[in-house]
Amino acid sequence: MERSSPFLLLATIFSALYCHASSIEHGGLPLPIHPIRPKSGSGGKLLEGISCNSWRLAVETNNLRNWKTVPAECGDYVGHYLLGQYYRQDSSYVTLEAAKYGESINRTGDGKDIWVFDIDETTLSNAPYYAAHGFGVQPYNETSFNAWVDTGKAPALPESLVLYNRLLSLGFKVVFLTGRGEMRREVTRKNLRAAGYRNWEKLLLRQPSDVHKPAVVFKSEQRAKLVKQGYRIQGNIGDQWSDILGTDIGSRTFKLPDPVYYVS
Amino acid sequence: MERSSPFLLLATIFSALYCHASSIEHGGLPLPIHPIRPKSGSGGKLLEGISCNSWRLAVETNNLRNWKTVPAECGDYVGHYLLGQYYRQDSSYVTLEAAKYGESINRTGDGKDIWVFDIDETTLSNAPYYAAHGFGVQPYNETSFNAWVDTGKAPALPESLVLYNRLLSLGFKVVFLTGRGEMRREVTRKNLRAAGYRNWEKLLLRQPSDVHKPAVVFKSEQRAKLVKQGYRIQGNIGDQWSDILGTDIGSRTFKLPDPVYYVS
Repeated sequence: MERSSPFLLLATIFSALYCHASSIEHGGLPLPIHPIRPKSGSGGKLLEGISCNSWRLAVETNNLRNWKTVPAECGDYVGHYLLGQYYRQDSSYVTLEAAKYGESINRTGDGKDIWVFDIDETTLSNAPYYAAHGFGVQPYNETSFNAWVDTGKAPALPESLVLYNRLLSLGFKVVFLTGRGEMRREVTRKNLRAAGYRNWEKLLLRQPSDVHKPAVVFKSEQRAKLVKQGYRIQGNIGDQWSDILGTDIGSRTFKLPDPVYYVS
Repeated sequence: MERSSPFLLLATIFSALYCHASSIEHGGLPLPIHPIRPKSGSGGKLLEGISCNSWRLAVETNNLRNWKTVPAECGDYVGHYLLGQYYRQDSSYVTLEAAKYGESINRTGDGKDIWVFDIDETTLSNAPYYAAHGFGVQPYNETSFNAWVDTGKAPALPESLVLYNRLLSLGFKVVFLTGRGEMRREVTRKNLRAAGYRNWEKLLLRQPSDVHKPAVVFKSEQRAKLVKQGYRIQGNIGDQWSDILGTDIGSRTFKLPDPVYYVS
């Protein structure tokens, strides 16, 4: 029962949000019970102070780097965002654009046109974990996060699953490239399959020699190997800038939202 | 009188927004009379439809590229954003972070530590023009935009002026690098001075041979020349991704918001 408590909490939060919201319609969309509002400490001057909207935009545009935790004032804001409609809409806009791009390019049919997907907060969602651990306000706890990963119960990010299926149907091969360690290959494989991802060309995880490399270095090295093997990286999607910066980034990159954590 | 009409319109819009808003306080900040609301056509599926919030995030994160005009449904939204508090807050967050970064790095004092500023929508604001021309919903009109530029009356983006002054006081030299043509050097010089920018190391404009180059190519070439001349590009700030992608981008880049137009 201990282990299921994050799920119970999440179910409670979801039902509180959606059961109430579904009775209130606005422009065809359910309204969350708590609209996301900026919490602001200052206006337009160079003063300290937090506007959570501006903080999130700065995060998503890579203006803010190497941050360790979500500002405490923005915990509720991030929670409402992550569990509400805006995260889904923002993700949908990105994956729609990615699908359009995939449709627009010539595929050769030789099996070498690939699309690189990051895993956490891209292919799979750890929202259930973060809902139970302060939405990024608490410092990263490797032990408890890994315990969650090892349950293998992360749901798909629904928009990414739609994109994944569309790309497969267009003839792309998918490569999963993740900062997770090799020791988590089996649980990751099972989790991907359980979440609806059943075909991939490669599942690339960190080897022991990669452990101390920044993600941007590790992922650039792995993409270089793919290119050397004759693959054409037509698309590359991730929630972190370290997924889509560096070298051999692919013909086009897509940045999914992630206001919960930063990986360099 | 014809030429001053954009200013009159802008003054009217500003006073309508702020005079009314100043009587309503919320959390210490004035509320705009029309809060920015997402206008949405679809939920989380791969369907056509516009959420203006999601559209703007996709633009600012470089997920959406080569777009020609703001979607018609988002014209009002962009207008309220650009003339309201959120554009200022978002800009402030970026320039605050840039100033912090500037303070954190060692300056050698040899006059070679430079900061590259783009001009339009970075150093100067064309909000008065766009307020009179549909906030990006209307297709770009080179003739009328250039007529506005030639008035030399663009105000400073206030947050950038604060950053500029802070960087000068820290010992950086500033280089302005703009897609404007050489024929506009004099009006640009006067406009910069009138807006409060009085010192610069270089003002780099497009030469006739640069006219057909994409901005990202032209700007990369100019930065390469700066590096060759021994300058160290410590910072680079612009409102377009083409200002801060390419080569010799600088030790760190900063992306200011611009939901009005896209330059490749």
